[in-house]
Amino acid sequence: MTIDISSGHILALSGGVGGAKLASGLAGVLPPERLTIAVNTADDFEHLGLTICPDIDSVTYALAGLNDMQRGWGMKDESWQAMEMLRRLGEADWFNLGDRDLAMHIARSWRLREGESLSQVTARLTGEIGIAHTIVPMSDDLVRTEICADGVWMDFQRYFVAEQCRPVAASVRFTGADKARLSPAFAQALVRQDLAAVVICPSNPYLSVDPILSLGGVTSALEATKAPVIAVSPLVGGAALKGPLAKLMAELGKPVSNSAIAGHYRGVIDHLVIDAVDAADERGLREAGLCATVTQTVMREAADRERLAREVLAIAGGVD
Amino acid sequence: MTIDISSGHILALSGGVGGAKLASGLAGVLPPERLTIAVNTADDFEHLGLTICPDIDSVTYALAGLNDMQRGWGMKDESWQAMEMLRRLGEADWFNLGDRDLAMHIARSWRLREGESLSQVTARLTGEIGIAHTIVPMSDDLVRTEICADGVWMDFQRYFVAEQCRPVAASVRFTGADKARLSPAFAQALVRQDLAAVVICPSNPYLSVDPILSLGGVTSALEATKAPVIAVSPLVGGAALKGPLAKLMAELGKPVSNSAIAGHYRGVIDHLVIDAVDAADERGLREAGLCATVTQTVMREAADRERLAREVLAIAGGVD
Repeated sequence: MTIDISSGHILALSGGVGGAKLASGLAGVLPPERLTIAVNTADDFEHLGLTICPDIDSVTYALAGLNDMQRGWGMKDESWQAMEMLRRLGEADWFNLGDRDLAMHIARSWRLREGESLSQVTARLTGEIGIAHTIVPMSDDLVRTEICADGVWMDFQRYFVAEQCRPVAASVRFTGADKARLSPAFAQALVRQDLAAVVICPSNPYLSVDPILSLGGVTSALEATKAPVIAVSPLVGGAALKGPLAKLMAELGKPVSNSAIAGHYRGVIDHLVIDAVDAADERGLREAGLCATVTQTVMREAADRERLAREVLAIAGGVD
Repeated sequence: MTIDISSGHILALSGGVGGAKLASGLAGVLPPERLTIAVNTADDFEHLGLTICPDIDSVTYALAGLNDMQRGWGMKDESWQAMEMLRRLGEADWFNLGDRDLAMHIARSWRLREGESLSQVTARLTGEIGIAHTIVPMSDDLVRTEICADGVWMDFQRYFVAEQCRPVAASVRFTGADKARLSPAFAQALVRQDLAAVVICPSNPYLSVDPILSLGGVTSALEATKAPVIAVSPLVGGAALKGPLAKLMAELGKPVSNSAIAGHYRGVIDHLVIDAVDAADERGLREAGLCATVTQTVMREAADRERLAREVLAIAGGVD
């Protein structure tokens, strides 16, 4: 059976900002019933009694058109009055909480305490904010990324925000991943008969995509599916547009290259999409047995996102 | 033993906005070690997972100079970005949460969940915000004002904010008051050897002061203390400056008068301070055996608050 890319279902796996851009591009070109976006939750954390889900929020704000394009994270038209007062009250100020962003954390935390699952809360809040597409957490169970850096295991947000990725990372682990179950909608999407493509969005493979892949049943489902699995490389010219990817790869002893990205995803992906500035990498990837496509992967405007989304879907149509 | 009003301790009992004005006046004229402000907590409630203490916050904001004088409640220089987004997320919007105010609720709720008592949290947050004086909750245990209005028992905030006091009240009760213990600092202040005066601030006697008086041991301590107990009437010209006092008194079948206020506090207070527009009431009060003082009780500016505070303290010095 060949899945028709013009009617089948697309499953996108996404981390935060970079992934959220392509996820919103896919949402821009696919009707809601044809797309499921499964999002990393291993960066989630409890802060001042609030449950904060940075990657779900990045994807949500991007799809709702509420993301701040200049700052690169959080909501646009944001203000920081609560944060200033929290600081004055002597509370932790290492994690910036915008006033508009806070509403999301308050609503989510409250609904979770009332007994809703993270899947239910995410469906509720993305729906209320006007998103017709399906954004689902990778799991409703607790998984936490921890980084061994400068000899100490630390929570992801401590490493990423408080320490601004300065410590030298030696290892990454996903505490709870061995026991966490896939969220119902993610599990269903993985085994859909009409699954036409799986898109691994350009998020950090080691910190944002690996938690998703580390969950029981995900890599085996991706190996088993007839649908092509297409990753968009987060590297552009040997660096990440945002975040600690290049530094982290070097510290983990890997060459900062698309070959290393491809090697990391070996057995899982069928196709790697790389940026035009890295066109020279294509040959090596093909020689290593991987399909590769060269295009513009940097998404500055909404139009860039949708163009890249269309190109990825076109690749899926040409792979079987 | 005669307590020296120039060195003894003053205990103020306060509800929200009106009481907070006199409490801040007392703080303006007394050094921190000479004043304890015990605040009603029976209006506190849980909202969107946050513990909101309107009267503690009113007193805190007034003492910190952060209260909004125009609006009459909440913080000055306030913004409403989180509220707007909460509304967009489909969450309850009947209780207005300012961005700066939210910081207080978030910090308090978090510290309470971490295991601190409301007394500890209040000491922490008022200290951090720069208040040297002692603001204490009447109790660390849960007491809730409920109003039977239009035949239905409802929470205070539902009646006061959501229903804007429109339902006709028939009865008021303080659920939990029979079991609640006084907060440690309130209990200590009540029995201080150097207690020189107890000031009942001009808050609603039925809704804001009664919860304090309803706690076990309070009225007996006020009856037993040698210190004068002085109430400032919240009525001015037969109406309250703010809030539902006059409407409530009428609905409870009481004349809307200083005589009724005095009757309500009978046995507890030694002295009632009334406004100059109600000077005609003085004679009746004195004939009923109560000391009364006529002055300007309306506090528009900080100077009004301190003047009234000085007058109340002067009365205390003249009563034994």
